[in-house]
Amino acid sequence: MSLILKNVRPMAGAATDVKIENGKIAGFGQNLTGDTTEDGKGAILLPGLVEAHTHLDKTLLGMPWYKNEVGPRLIDKIDNEREMKSVLGIDSRRQSARQIVQSVSKGSTHIRSHVDVDTVHGLKGVEGVLASRDEYADIVTMDFVAFPQSGMLGRPGTVELMEEALKMGVECVGGIDPSSIERDPRLHIDTVFALADRYGKMVDIHLHEPAELGAFSMELIIERTAALGMKGKVTVSHAFCLGLSDDAYVGRMIEGLAENDIAIVTTGPAGRPCPPVKRLRDAGVTVAAGTDGMRDTWGPYGNADMLERAMLVGLRNNFRRDDELDIAMEVVTYGGAKLMMLDGYGLKVGDKADLVVVAGETIAEAIVNRAPRALVFKHGKVVARDGACLKAAP
Amino acid sequence: MSLILKNVRPMAGAATDVKIENGKIAGFGQNLTGDTTEDGKGAILLPGLVEAHTHLDKTLLGMPWYKNEVGPRLIDKIDNEREMKSVLGIDSRRQSARQIVQSVSKGSTHIRSHVDVDTVHGLKGVEGVLASRDEYADIVTMDFVAFPQSGMLGRPGTVELMEEALKMGVECVGGIDPSSIERDPRLHIDTVFALADRYGKMVDIHLHEPAELGAFSMELIIERTAALGMKGKVTVSHAFCLGLSDDAYVGRMIEGLAENDIAIVTTGPAGRPCPPVKRLRDAGVTVAAGTDGMRDTWGPYGNADMLERAMLVGLRNNFRRDDELDIAMEVVTYGGAKLMMLDGYGLKVGDKADLVVVAGETIAEAIVNRAPRALVFKHGKVVARDGACLKAAP
Ligand SMILES: [Zn+2]
Ligand SMILES: [Zn+2]
Repeated sequence: MSLILKNVRPMAGAATDVKIENGKIAGFGQNLTGDTTEDGKGAILLPGLVEAHTHLDKTLLGMPWYKNEVGPRLIDKIDNEREMKSVLGIDSRRQSARQIVQSVSKGSTHIRSHVDVDTVHGLKGVEGVLASRDEYADIVTMDFVAFPQSGMLGRPGTVELMEEALKMGVECVGGIDPSSIERDPRLHIDTVFALADRYGKMVDIHLHEPAELGAFSMELIIERTAALGMKGKVTVSHAFCLGLSDDAYVGRMIEGLAENDIAIVTTGPAGRPCPPVKRLRDAGVTVAAGTDGMRDTWGPYGNADMLERAMLVGLRNNFRRDDELDIAMEVVTYGGAKLMMLDGYGLKVGDKADLVVVAGETIAEAIVNRAPRALVFKHGKVVARDGACLKAAP
Repeated sequence: MSLILKNVRPMAGAATDVKIENGKIAGFGQNLTGDTTEDGKGAILLPGLVEAHTHLDKTLLGMPWYKNEVGPRLIDKIDNEREMKSVLGIDSRRQSARQIVQSVSKGSTHIRSHVDVDTVHGLKGVEGVLASRDEYADIVTMDFVAFPQSGMLGRPGTVELMEEALKMGVECVGGIDPSSIERDPRLHIDTVFALADRYGKMVDIHLHEPAELGAFSMELIIERTAALGMKGKVTVSHAFCLGLSDDAYVGRMIEGLAENDIAIVTTGPAGRPCPPVKRLRDAGVTVAAGTDGMRDTWGPYGNADMLERAMLVGLRNNFRRDDELDIAMEVVTYGGAKLMMLDGYGLKVGDKADLVVVAGETIAEAIVNRAPRALVFKHGKVVARDGACLKAAP
C-alpha cells in the first residue's frame, strides 16, 4: 500500500507531492503514483511534533474540574497530589490514554513522559503508561522516565521501585532537585547516574533549583555525565539556573553541556528565569520543549499543543524575527527527536512517515495561528484529521 | 423585541435564563417570555471581554505574510514600521476593520486602541479608525489614544497633530517612554498632561522604561495626576518598572497609583519584569489587559483573544489556583471596563447586554480551554456565533 500526499509544502517551502510507502517517505515530486491519495491543499508539511516533557500519568483531562486551592509551597503541591491520586481516582492508564489522544490530535507523534514512582502508589503509574504505550503504539511513539516526584532519598524503598520500573521497560532514570528537595545533591545524583549506568538507561532530571544552587547541581550532572561517558544520553529539564544573570557562569555551563551533549528541555516559563534557547542552540546544545504537567493538581494550564508551546517558547525568548520562530519550531521537532534518540526522524526520503500537515503561509504563521492540524500521519497512516484523533480516548 | 437566552451560567454559577430587551439585561430566572430565544446549552455567561490595549491601525492581518528581519534596537522597529506603512500599504481603515471583526469573533465587545500620529503619516491612522468606529458601532464600542509612536518632542509638528486628533474625537492623549525615547521626561509628561487638561481627555502612556528609570517616570505621572485632579482618568500601559525587585519602592508606587486611581494595563509579557497583578489588585489598583500589537511589523504574535490573554497573564503571574484565575478573568472584563469608564457594564439587571457565552465548567476552564465563543451579544443582539463574527471583514 502506498499513499500520495498531494500539494504540501515541506517546512513551508515549495509545494510538492509526497509518496508514503511502508511507513516511510518514499519520494517527493509530481506525477507520483500510489494506491490512495490525500489532499494537502497547499498546507505546510512538518515532521511529527515531539512532546519532550509531560506527565501522562496524572493529568485530570476528562475528569470533573478540580478546584485548585493548594498552598503556595512546593511541598504543598507534592503532598496534595499524592493524596489526590487516591481521593480523585487518577488512573494512570485511563488518563495517559486521554492525553495521548489529545496530543496526537494536535500533531505530536512522539512523547516523552515522566511517570511518578513513590512508596505510596508504587508502580501503578508505570503500569498504566506501559499499558497505554501498547494500546496506542499505532498512533504514537513514547519513552518514559521513572520520576521520584515525592523524593527518593527521604523515602526508603523508592530507589528499589525505580529499579523495578527500569526492568519493566522504562527508558530513563529521573531525578529531582538534588539540594532543595533531596537535601543531599551528591548522593542524589550519584544514585541516579549509578542506576542509569547499571541498566544502560538514559537520564532526565527535573532541575528547578534557581540560580547558583541549580548551577551547582548542573555542574555535578555535567561531571557525572563526563565521568560515565554518557554523552548524548542525559537531559536536564527546566534548568532555570541557565537563566542566571551571571553571564560568564552561564557560558561555562553551556560549554559543559555542549561538550557532553547534554540536552535541555524548556516549557518557556513566563514567570521565572529560564534557559536562553538561541544561545544554547548557537553553542550546539540540543534544546527541546514540553507541556510539562497538563491540567493536573499543580495547575490548570496546557493543551498538549506543541505549536502553542513553540509560541510560548518564542514569547519567553523574545523571538520576533522569522528566523527566530524557525528556532522555536526546531525545538518542538528536531530538538525533541534528538533528545529521544529517534532514528529516521525528519523529512528526507527514507525517513519515517510521522508527519503533520497544518495550514499556514510560513513556519512563523503556523506557530502563531495554530490552525487545527489538517492531517497527522503515524507509521505512514492518517491518525488524526481536521484536529480530531481517529482513535478514541477512554 | 425581546430575547430569552436560555440555560447559561453567569460567571460559571448556577444555570438560569436571561431576558434581553432594548439592548439591556432585563431579568434572570425561569419561565421568562420573549419574542425569540437562543440556547446557551449550559455554557458560561460573561460580560463582553475588554481589549484594553491594542493597535488597530497597523495590524497586518489578512495581508501577505510579512517576513520579519528587523534589527534588535527599539529604534530599528519604530523606523522600519513608519517606512513599511507606505511600502506595504498598511491602510488604517481596512486593517482596523479586520482586527475588529476578529476581536468580536473572540468575544470582545469593547476595545481601546492606540493610533499612531506622526509627521510622516499625519492623521491617516486616526481617520481610518474613526471611520471603522462608525462602520462597526453596531458590534463593538471603542475609544482611541493619539499615540506618538515615533516620538513627540524630537519631531516638531507632532503635538499639533495630536491636538488635531483630540479635536476629531480621540478620547485619550498618549505618551511614550519620557526619558529613553523622548530624552526629556519632564517636558514630555507636562506636554501630555497639558493636552489632556486643555481638552478634557484621558491619558494613556506607553511606559516600557525598566526599573528605576521607569519608576522615575511613574513618579512624574503620579505627581501630575494628583496636581491636575485627574483621578480615574490616567492609565499606564506596560509599566515594566512595577516588576522592580525593590519591594518597598514598588510598594510606594502602588500606593501612589491607588491614591490617584491610575490604571495599569499589562500584556502579561513572558520575557521581562512586569506589574504584579494580584498585588496591584489587592491594593485597589485597576488592572486591565491587552493584546498590544497583533501580527504587525514588530512581531507575529497575537490573535485578539482576550481569554488567551487571560491565560498569558495567569502564566506570567504564576496563577494556579481557581481564585487566582478568577483575577485573570476580572482583568480582561471589569478591569478594562473600569479603565474605559464604561457605564452599565456587567451582569446585573439593567446592565447593557454586551455578553459572551463560552463553554466551560469553571472560569478557570474557560481560560485554559478557550473554546470558540458560542455566542457574542452587542447592544442585545447576536454579533458572533460559534467563533465567527456575523459581520464581514474587508
Ligand atoms: Zn515535569
Ligand atoms: Zn502598545
